[in-house]
Amino acid sequence: MLSALINGVASAAATHEIGVDERGLSYGDGVFETMRLQAGNVLFIDSHITRLRGGCERLGFQPPSDATLRSDIVKLAREQRDGVVKLIVTRGAGGRGYRPASTLLPTRIAILYPPVGDTANTGIAVRWCATRLARNPRLAGIKHLNRLEQVLAQNEWDDVNIAEGLMMDTEGELVCATSSNLFIVGDGVLTTPDLRFCGVRGVMRGQVIKLALATGFSVRERALQAEDLLSASEAFVTNAVRGIRSIVSLDEHRWPIGTITAHLHAALGNSAMEGSLRCAQE
Amino acid sequence: MLSALINGVASAAATHEIGVDERGLSYGDGVFETMRLQAGNVLFIDSHITRLRGGCERLGFQPPSDATLRSDIVKLAREQRDGVVKLIVTRGAGGRGYRPASTLLPTRIAILYPPVGDTANTGIAVRWCATRLARNPRLAGIKHLNRLEQVLAQNEWDDVNIAEGLMMDTEGELVCATSSNLFIVGDGVLTTPDLRFCGVRGVMRGQVIKLALATGFSVRERALQAEDLLSASEAFVTNAVRGIRSIVSLDEHRWPIGTITAHLHAALGNSAMEGSLRCAQE
Repeated sequence: MLSALINGVASAAATHEIGVDERGLSYGDGVFETMRLQAGNVLFIDSHITRLRGGCERLGFQPPSDATLRSDIVKLAREQRDGVVKLIVTRGAGGRGYRPASTLLPTRIAILYPPVGDTANTGIAVRWCATRLARNPRLAGIKHLNRLEQVLAQNEWDDVNIAEGLMMDTEGELVCATSSNLFIVGDGVLTTPDLRFCGVRGVMRGQVIKLALATGFSVRERALQAEDLLSASEAFVTNAVRGIRSIVSLDEHRWPIGTITAHLHAALGNSAMEGSLRCAQE
Repeated sequence: MLSALINGVASAAATHEIGVDERGLSYGDGVFETMRLQAGNVLFIDSHITRLRGGCERLGFQPPSDATLRSDIVKLAREQRDGVVKLIVTRGAGGRGYRPASTLLPTRIAILYPPVGDTANTGIAVRWCATRLARNPRLAGIKHLNRLEQVLAQNEWDDVNIAEGLMMDTEGELVCATSSNLFIVGDGVLTTPDLRFCGVRGVMRGQVIKLALATGFSVRERALQAEDLLSASEAFVTNAVRGIRSIVSLDEHRWPIGTITAHLHAALGNSAMEGSLRCAQE
């Protein structure tokens, strides 16, 4: 059974009062955040809430207040020290048809999942996904609920030794992994796809860019091709729950856990409490 | 309050036991059909169920049996003579993360909405939408639950005199309207976008093509541009609930309710009981 709150109301059951006319269900009309709860703190909460608010605004609805969202998270997570907190905010429930009524109130769903393990960087093997990402600048960067491409991509493999799948867009640009952003390192410069057409602008992606710049590395956001990855000296993926993980294997290609990646991984560990939310009761 | 069934279990309330980990909500991981209930019959049920099954298969999960789906619809609709029946089938509930467990059981949600009026063809005014459709052949044609583009497009206007919005894809091809397919007529030939990159392959679109061919008209499915519409002698949109509706106005352009459209509208009325499902109790 999952622990969850719907519009701030708790239930211990896995099923809750979500309306059949919930627009999050009908159309994927909403956004979500997936956050790491570590030692009683939800990490990078400021960045998560900022992105969530930005997503709602780009979809054209007013999100709940920051205080309401933080209150839900604290109420949900205060009994646990470690886990994964998922926060879904939809445009609301009601009506039939795509056009949203202007009177809708957003639905908030907060769910607490078990922990997923530590953030050590042991290096991961990845593969290519055949599923491509469609290009739509109107939706690019937002962590919205229309995620069929990611579902189809992850459904392509079940080898537990493969931790991630790399995704190209329909024009063949390398964009991201199924649930992570991608960075490559070459000549001391970090490069990450610019996400102008598709992909999610990850909270951990933003944090890594910030740490890299603060450390004196150059960071470039631009279109990437598969060849850029294959010729990189280091490569890693980022995700708010798992942190930084080096790519060490892709088909016949091998990369080391590079020194710049290791440096950023250490810096990330030191920065993890920045903008976090204390949930645990003392 | 809506009348609805979840996995065949009735409730009179608008809220029901949908899990917070329902994949239809988390990722839009499912498909839906919207059907016309008319004089105790759900119209074109065979085509709706065929498309729904095809959508589930393309998404990689096994839909419930036809008998189960029909049984849900009859159970839901038997007390009403007219209305709109919506059927959602998702991959199921459970897990965190995009990858679906192989053990999931699909969720069925059937909802009965009030009637939307008759299917007379009085002609409609349409507008252009700024929101574009992304191209992804992997998802093209399926009536899946990832519908943010349609939501954003319908949210562009609230003039009740404008009944539909026309949508282009990101490359500028004319694809469809927000909740209808598009046909144009010129030199006695019907042409409709081929939907190879995006758009929903409508049940009514299929029925109109069938009726047109049976009547001796030529039908072409190909890429369309805005100019093709502007130079057409007749134009109409199709939708399973509303039937055929002539486009009579777009910006400064005007079209008549053409003779070929009127012929197809009459033929559609005569064909409406083909493959329908009797729900009303005698």
